[in-house]
Amino acid sequence: YFRTNMGHSPVQQYQFTVLMVIVHAIILVLFGLFVSFDDTYAMPEAKDDNTFLNTRYPNYMDTHIMIFVGFGFLMTFLKRYGFSSVAINMLLAALTIEWGILCRGFLTEHFAETGKITLNIDQLLEADFAAAVILISMGVLLGKLSPIQYVIMVLIETPAAIAAEHLVEHVFKINDVGDSIVVHVFGAYFGIACSLAFAKKKQRGHENEGSIYHTDILAMIGALFLWVSWPSFNAATAEPAEAHHRAIINTVLSLVGCTITTFLTSQLFEPHKRFNMVHIANSTLAGGVAIGTCANVVMDPILSIALGSFAGVISVLGYIYLTPFLSTRFGMHDTCGVHNLHGMPGVIAGLFSAVMAVAYPKEKFGASLSSIYPAMAHDGQTESGQALMQLAGLGTVLGCSIIAGAVTGVILRAPFFNQVRDDEYFADGDYFHTPDDYDFTTRIAEKIQHVSFLDEEQKTKLTMA
Amino acid sequence: YFRTNMGHSPVQQYQFTVLMVIVHAIILVLFGLFVSFDDTYAMPEAKDDNTFLNTRYPNYMDTHIMIFVGFGFLMTFLKRYGFSSVAINMLLAALTIEWGILCRGFLTEHFAETGKITLNIDQLLEADFAAAVILISMGVLLGKLSPIQYVIMVLIETPAAIAAEHLVEHVFKINDVGDSIVVHVFGAYFGIACSLAFAKKKQRGHENEGSIYHTDILAMIGALFLWVSWPSFNAATAEPAEAHHRAIINTVLSLVGCTITTFLTSQLFEPHKRFNMVHIANSTLAGGVAIGTCANVVMDPILSIALGSFAGVISVLGYIYLTPFLSTRFGMHDTCGVHNLHGMPGVIAGLFSAVMAVAYPKEKFGASLSSIYPAMAHDGQTESGQALMQLAGLGTVLGCSIIAGAVTGVILRAPFFNQVRDDEYFADGDYFHTPDDYDFTTRIAEKIQHVSFLDEEQKTKLTMA
Amino acid sequence: YFRTNMGHSPVQQYQFTVLMVIVHAIILVLFGLFVSFDDTYAMPEAKDDNTFLNTRYPNYMDTHIMIFVGFGFLMTFLKRYGFSSVAINMLLAALTIEWGILCRGFLTEHFAETGKITLNIDQLLEADFAAAVILISMGVLLGKLSPIQYVIMVLIETPAAIAAEHLVEHVFKINDVGDSIVVHVFGAYFGIACSLAFAKKKQRGHENEGSIYHTDILAMIGALFLWVSWPSFNAATAEPAEAHHRAIINTVLSLVGCTITTFLTSQLFEPHKRFNMVHIANSTLAGGVAIGTCANVVMDPILSIALGSFAGVISVLGYIYLTPFLSTRFGMHDTCGVHNLHGMPGVIAGLFSAVMAVAYPKEKFGASLSSIYPAMAHDGQTESGQALMQLAGLGTVLGCSIIAGAVTGVILRAPFFNQVRDDEYFADGDYFHTPDDYDFTTRIAEKIQHVSFLDEEQKTKLTMA
Repeated sequence: YFRTNMGHSPVQQYQFTVLMVIVHAIILVLFGLFVSFDDTYAMPEAKDDNTFLNTRYPNYMDTHIMIFVGFGFLMTFLKRYGFSSVAINMLLAALTIEWGILCRGFLTEHFAETGKITLNIDQLLEADFAAAVILISMGVLLGKLSPIQYVIMVLIETPAAIAAEHLVEHVFKINDVGDSIVVHVFGAYFGIACSLAFAKKKQRGHENEGSIYHTDILAMIGALFLWVSWPSFNAATAEPAEAHHRAIINTVLSLVGCTITTFLTSQLFEPHKRFNMVHIANSTLAGGVAIGTCANVVMDPILSIALGSFAGVISVLGYIYLTPFLSTRFGMHDTCGVHNLHGMPGVIAGLFSAVMAVAYPKEKFGASLSSIYPAMAHDGQTESGQALMQLAGLGTVLGCSIIAGAVTGVILRAPFFNQVRDDEYFADGDYFHTPDDYDFTTRIAEKIQHVSFLDEEQKTKLTMA
Repeated sequence: YFRTNMGHSPVQQYQFTVLMVIVHAIILVLFGLFVSFDDTYAMPEAKDDNTFLNTRYPNYMDTHIMIFVGFGFLMTFLKRYGFSSVAINMLLAALTIEWGILCRGFLTEHFAETGKITLNIDQLLEADFAAAVILISMGVLLGKLSPIQYVIMVLIETPAAIAAEHLVEHVFKINDVGDSIVVHVFGAYFGIACSLAFAKKKQRGHENEGSIYHTDILAMIGALFLWVSWPSFNAATAEPAEAHHRAIINTVLSLVGCTITTFLTSQLFEPHKRFNMVHIANSTLAGGVAIGTCANVVMDPILSIALGSFAGVISVLGYIYLTPFLSTRFGMHDTCGVHNLHGMPGVIAGLFSAVMAVAYPKEKFGASLSSIYPAMAHDGQTESGQALMQLAGLGTVLGCSIIAGAVTGVILRAPFFNQVRDDEYFADGDYFHTPDDYDFTTRIAEKIQHVSFLDEEQKTKLTMA
Repeated sequence: YFRTNMGHSPVQQYQFTVLMVIVHAIILVLFGLFVSFDDTYAMPEAKDDNTFLNTRYPNYMDTHIMIFVGFGFLMTFLKRYGFSSVAINMLLAALTIEWGILCRGFLTEHFAETGKITLNIDQLLEADFAAAVILISMGVLLGKLSPIQYVIMVLIETPAAIAAEHLVEHVFKINDVGDSIVVHVFGAYFGIACSLAFAKKKQRGHENEGSIYHTDILAMIGALFLWVSWPSFNAATAEPAEAHHRAIINTVLSLVGCTITTFLTSQLFEPHKRFNMVHIANSTLAGGVAIGTCANVVMDPILSIALGSFAGVISVLGYIYLTPFLSTRFGMHDTCGVHNLHGMPGVIAGLFSAVMAVAYPKEKFGASLSSIYPAMAHDGQTESGQALMQLAGLGTVLGCSIIAGAVTGVILRAPFFNQVRDDEYFADGDYFHTPDDYDFTTRIAEKIQHVSFLDEEQKTKLTMA
């Protein structure tokens, strides 16, 4: 029954293929015209020294694992959407890597001067960061878009996010070493705005939504790889060496604090004082987001733990109280609770970075802060000026992401595009070949209760029948 | 039915929250008072050189994966305890990282001199080693403790393990590069002593114990990440570079030998000549433990393989013969068979290190051994003296761990603390929100046989009914 | 029923044990006679410099993860063969590491001169590459061999593959930096030839073949770790630093292009325009194989993406059209579709390397190519000569692998060796202890349909019975 034709017209059947062929062909042409290897590290004239690569590559691989394994498996928690979660995650990440290299390349000074985009490990790393933006938004919209709609989202969101990042990093000159503002805030609020513009009543309280026992465990594969690798994400581009070192330590401490408060808050506020795996798999990561913007800043280690701890509390309370409220009041549907994992913690990161700019104990640590906030280091920016810039950056990213997300949501409503059928939200069946047992466990779960009761109550009758 | 109230008094309902808040607050205060970044690597006055971090960080990340993914997933083999295994593993590891940094810091010379604990990547690495101790003990007690009991175990065991380590490394000056004595032996025998002190008859032969098909495969995620990353664990702190290099090679060879003998021993001694996944997931790792103490020692590579091979045989035979014997005879219950994976192989590691101290072929390798056993390098310790110190270290760790574990077990029996109900050993239901299908597969497995037979024998009758 | 005795004679029951003990003992003796640590890096006279290890070790760890986690989990897609997939994968990899170190060592100049095989991280890395050959062949034969047959395959294939590699790398002096010819082509065609020689009609269309919903997701764990880590595999031995850097970038780009074309081709050519998880888990990796031989070559980045894109298309079409054709026409059975993931993409890699040797735009990139193709760099090989050598190398590897595979297949047919029973192809039951629910989901899936329909249609009758 759920395998019947989706009622697509021939044009609709082929629209994914046609769009992907066109997009991929254009990307290939643009690569051919503009992209080459970087002379300094990746061409024969480079010197034979692996130091730069040895510093970047482990961080890159960890980030790569976060993008493909971490995000992919974190989203497999839905009981009937595992194929889509892990596979569409992979498709969008791959597409964004290509598209992000181009979009970001066109904005570089190097391109303005030479007309060339050059590649070394840093461009691959930044392409993964661009993919993170997309996958965060995907978490909000998970289960509600068809493949072509996801792809269109990538095509619009990637340049929007990179443009916003360019603006706040090069004009406002904010410090955002772990990309909490330009990646997490952008991805989260873009997704939320898009979801609101795309909202339908049937998306809420859908019978396909929710997990089963082993999908919650599969999601922990993603959560744990994100958790473990997060220091690499935040520290990857931190320079010099001491800032890199510090970014790792601050991130570990924040995550550790966050994990502890996630557990205690989850148990305290949930019915029957039971832990909720949604919090364990998601809110434990909020500390990595909250410390991101300032991970490279010299501070007392207690601050990192405290900030992470605060983020954990806020994230869990967001899941328990805010998400249902936003759903009931504004019809907002956020499949993975991205607002609680990336949205609010990202805003906290931005606000914290502004506070740190003015409240920084200079006497204690010397003049070091000015070497970390770039405008203070190079352009004589004042402390309060820097704080304002951090706030302006946060506000700009919020504004850009909400506008871009809302516009995208409206575009995705166009009936021309394949739309997920109401019955098939949060389900793989329409877009993936699924084995016979695909929804066996879930559909049978309620019925098996009958059999089991029947077994006990009526077994005699049954065997006598 | 399994969701009924646990009969906790209000005080008991809140005891986890209250304890965690107090503990976390104290840890925060102690961090605030004593902990700062390390000047040499993580403060602005450090020089801009990533070499140290490039050496340590890959090993740290691998160790981090072992702690959070490796141990976490290895313990998901229980059919109804997957949430607890992977989540409580995460909570205890995070708590131990904080608590371990402090406990170890208070014992450093640096603290004695300056009153400060300073952080660089090495302190994070050692905090992960402290977490390993806890997670090994957790393996023995898996499924038998409530969350608050696990936390109390962390609070007691962490300082005990770190004190014992301090004693044997600074007073006896033993070589234990891969921490087989101070981590594996301590964790295993602490857990066993605790389990004995905490033993109840209902824990043995419980219907919730055991795996289902896909949880055995999930456990292999943990086993394989432990196996693959183990060389990083053993080599992480090995210095100089050649010892680091050798620790990696010795560990790989030992694991490879161990894996082969695990398979052949498992098949040979099991009924029907069938492999047992418990051995595959656990005993294959014994080689990493057995070589740990001497991983940095110059030896013929055949010795590493032989030692690992021996550990594999002992570990499998332990699972098949010793564990049931200890259970029947002494009422010992060891959920993961930690004694076979960490206990005996750790003792083997200690004994091997003593033998190597006296039987070392100096003529063949030169005076190199003396540069590896620290007391021989710096304090003029003799060979037999070093061998005695290795044995004394092993004995001390055994003694400390057993005493500390037994005391902890007695404390955990206090009826004031939440105790796991007899019916709910090895089950998530009391402490985690679980989806509807939580125990579906397992509870229905026996019944579905009826339906299936019924289907074949009585289908006609049934459809005629 | 499936647990009844396999009808083995006592000799057959013990043959795995006996063979493994003999093999392991011989390997131990050979290690004792010939293997020692490398003086340059792993002995006390080495200088205290981690640079070499810092360059190699992250690549080694990634490769290690590919071998044990990647291949292991990729093969868990079979619904009743998960234990074997992940465990036998581990056994064969461990055995090949030992055996491969020896086989390769005996062919080195160093051994010829000194009678010694010396170990550093490079020998471990190459031992993992040797394991990759075996695991690729295992993918073709998955579910059709008994443990002892797999082991015999290792014993024959490892020296054959290493000898062929030695020939083409030292005599023909081909460039094959990512081992696409000597690992992927060899492993694939050895497996295919072996499978053909070993073919039985019952292997095709077997009821045990095929996946269930969650095993397809488990397979994605393997696929994603292979995908993410592949740049490390291709770049691990690339030198100097710029070639290493380039090998990483080329591999990422090829994989990204391949992933996109895999998705679009899969949807376009599959019924109902639905994605097929077999393609997502396998064909997305073809780009890593196709770029392997030339990953270190200076080229326009568009070429990497284009080559990967082409490999993705070929691989998916192979799964949809070629595999069924080869099965029907030639009785070829290839459990994992290795021909589409490793075979054809490996041949593409070889052909591409020949084309690159002659069609290389020297004017554009300078004389750099000659520094990459070793015979051109050191022996004055001409461009067309190098192209011929690349083709000769590919042909030689194809020939050797097919002959060695066919011979192995004939040997494995010997009735003396334990043979998998016809009913038990692709099933764990005969060789592993399996939990009660082992084939529950799969056997019940069809029957539960009855219960579910019955529940709806006849529930009233039933409860009235």
